[in-house]
Amino acid sequence: MITLTSDFGTPYPAAMKGVLCQRTTARLIDVAHDVPRQDVRAGAFWLREVLPYFPPATHLVVIDPGVGTDRRALVVQAGEHVFVGPDNGVLCPVARRLAGDDALEAYAIDKSRLEAVEPTGHTATDANARAISGTDGDGPASNTFHGRDVFAPAAAGVHETDLDALADLEWLTPIADSPVELELPEATLENECASGEVLVVDDFGNVITNVPGGFLTDRDRVVANGESVPVGETFAAVAVGERLATVGSHGYVELDVNQGRGDAAFDLEAGDEVVLEVGDGD
Amino acid sequence: MITLTSDFGTPYPAAMKGVLCQRTTARLIDVAHDVPRQDVRAGAFWLREVLPYFPPATHLVVIDPGVGTDRRALVVQAGEHVFVGPDNGVLCPVARRLAGDDALEAYAIDKSRLEAVEPTGHTATDANARAISGTDGDGPASNTFHGRDVFAPAAAGVHETDLDALADLEWLTPIADSPVELELPEATLENECASGEVLVVDDFGNVITNVPGGFLTDRDRVVANGESVPVGETFAAVAVGERLATVGSHGYVELDVNQGRGDAAFDLEAGDEVVLEVGDGD
Amino acid sequence: MITLTSDFGTPYPAAMKGVLCQRTTARLIDVAHDVPRQDVRAGAFWLREVLPYFPPATHLVVIDPGVGTDRRALVVQAGEHVFVGPDNGVLCPVARRLAGDDALEAYAIDKSRLEAVEPTGHTATDANARAISGTDGDGPASNTFHGRDVFAPAAAGVHETDLDALADLEWLTPIADSPVELELPEATLENECASGEVLVVDDFGNVITNVPGGFLTDRDRVVANGESVPVGETFAAVAVGERLATVGSHGYVELDVNQGRGDAAFDLEAGDEVVLEVGDGD
Repeated sequence: MITLTSDFGTPYPAAMKGVLCQRTTARLIDVAHDVPRQDVRAGAFWLREVLPYFPPATHLVVIDPGVGTDRRALVVQAGEHVFVGPDNGVLCPVARRLAGDDALEAYAIDKSRLEAVEPTGHTATDANARAISGTDGDGPASNTFHGRDVFAPAAAGVHETDLDALADLEWLTPIADSPVELELPEATLENECASGEVLVVDDFGNVITNVPGGFLTDRDRVVANGESVPVGETFAAVAVGERLATVGSHGYVELDVNQGRGDAAFDLEAGDEVVLEVGDGD
Repeated sequence: MITLTSDFGTPYPAAMKGVLCQRTTARLIDVAHDVPRQDVRAGAFWLREVLPYFPPATHLVVIDPGVGTDRRALVVQAGEHVFVGPDNGVLCPVARRLAGDDALEAYAIDKSRLEAVEPTGHTATDANARAISGTDGDGPASNTFHGRDVFAPAAAGVHETDLDALADLEWLTPIADSPVELELPEATLENECASGEVLVVDDFGNVITNVPGGFLTDRDRVVANGESVPVGETFAAVAVGERLATVGSHGYVELDVNQGRGDAAFDLEAGDEVVLEVGDGD
Repeated sequence: MITLTSDFGTPYPAAMKGVLCQRTTARLIDVAHDVPRQDVRAGAFWLREVLPYFPPATHLVVIDPGVGTDRRALVVQAGEHVFVGPDNGVLCPVARRLAGDDALEAYAIDKSRLEAVEPTGHTATDANARAISGTDGDGPASNTFHGRDVFAPAAAGVHETDLDALADLEWLTPIADSPVELELPEATLENECASGEVLVVDDFGNVITNVPGGFLTDRDRVVANGESVPVGETFAAVAVGERLATVGSHGYVELDVNQGRGDAAFDLEAGDEVVLEVGDGD
């Protein structure tokens, strides 16, 4: 199985799927292709929260604001899962979670040694084909679409290889250092106060903070950035349109609105500071 | 085959797919994940119109404004099709259509007896894992994401079970009453007048009413909410940008614009009243 | 393998998938369902650029502003690829590219001879079913959803048939003339000036012109519609938020913004004229 995650929107993911289908019959499962554009942190969060529900798989991840630069292209093995994507931190939080106590095994992809992607109907003398290959001295890859030209072929290659034999792939080189790390911020917890921030806002408008859900245990109300709101076990603990704090499905405190948008009601977006205090605000 | 329908947007459907892929190799087909949020009626309409085109399958449906409350979680067998979703009416119109003259067989899911969903890399002592499980006395499920924690495992379990043996699943109990019903409204037809309403507006902006398409038979024009518009067999029966009434692909009268948005041109949205009268409005 | 491309949004593609799953176990891969509405040229462009990355497949394409009119429904064989869609030009650029020097083999679909699509739970006496079939004297197809009622069954039928035997299908008739052509415009190149236009704007806001990328070779700057911008091999060649000209993944000159929207920064949209001149604008 190969999962696909990107910030590509449409229809670029299909080009990656075409390349994958040329080289493997693996099942393809889309995780998301609408991660906020170039938002490595949001991508890292969602991957860390969603991929642990999958069976062992190859995970193709392309959120890559540095495409075409000298940032490395990586293959990272974490237990029975393998990640393929750019070396910008997006892979690390999920890889570390899935690896548990095991170390990550990370390899750099040498794109010049990958079997080149050859679209049907383009020829070596084709003006566009020349343009594609001509701007890069290091193989046939474009400089703007490594998802199609580097990461998809690498993901197919990894998928068709036993995990024990990854090190034998001639286009992979173990890296001497570590992958670029990206640490999702952790909240500071004191007895009656949690200081954290908004990790992401989800599609429903739920404001997902980095405060562990346990902060709400046995509380009826909490003061969020100065405003007292009820704590509910479910959205429906409050009337439709009303605000609440709850423990979301990732285990973190969320600031939500029953059948509405918490981000609008709390005026919060990703990266904003959140302070939660015990009490009813009186 | 398992179909998936939700109002989740992205990337929550992927977490459901991960759980499904852990437990079954069934083919997964997305119906939609952008049903209007918490809109049980719109979901019921689209399921009733789309799923009859599928072969026998397990249908996972999560449009669930009451998630985490005591609303039941159901498995409903309708002929060779099985539905898994909340007991809020969203399943009934399609289940009754697919069952034909057969009775529905409905079971309540006992989530505490389902095999728990265990994401890789979370441990029993993990703060988030505790937070997830700690707010619910009835098993490891979150209170806000039963799609992942209850309905997906149930759908996988149902898919791996012969239809004849559903009643033997220890986590299913036949319900003594009926599922919550949701009746999509029907239009009132008199000789020269049809009184109905807008069931949904589709992505093209086509206004889908509940007036049976037969009302337009042999008519050249119809008066829709007081305005006369031509009746066309195809969008292209009128010029680009012009309004028309036509029989849509669901068999109902639609108020549309050729290559434009009928909802804007007719100033109508879901739930609005529609009166169609014979005549040319003179 | 069957690929699916449309301008349907949601959930209409699912109805096509249901019909396909009734008749074939072929793998289904979505290319895109959010091609700009009724935009045959944009669809033709994306198909030509994306499908050459796929292995031989049946390609179901429904961008069809003339649905229900007497425009033909076609099956077009191009090498080992087969296209199924409306005769409005959308299929031709990609089919000609994939066919290379071979001629296209094009057949008209006789929808009255296709095995009818029969949704479960509808009966011959059902009011809606009558309405669906009653408005068309030529079989059971709706007039507004040939994707479901004509093209999906045709795609399934083609997929289940050896390419050599397409001509034997009783519902296919070789056409005597040619399919409707759609030529994507080509830029005019002189020594120091390229006159072309915007083919499409992609989801990132990148402005994809029809000027071959080779125009930028060995240049540091280029004057685009009168404004001098740097030429970069990668987005990151300029600071975040800055404009550049680059060779995109299709081999054409793109006018982009690093981590921003080129369409907004250059005030360009599909179809607009683009003149590129050598020099630094001084």
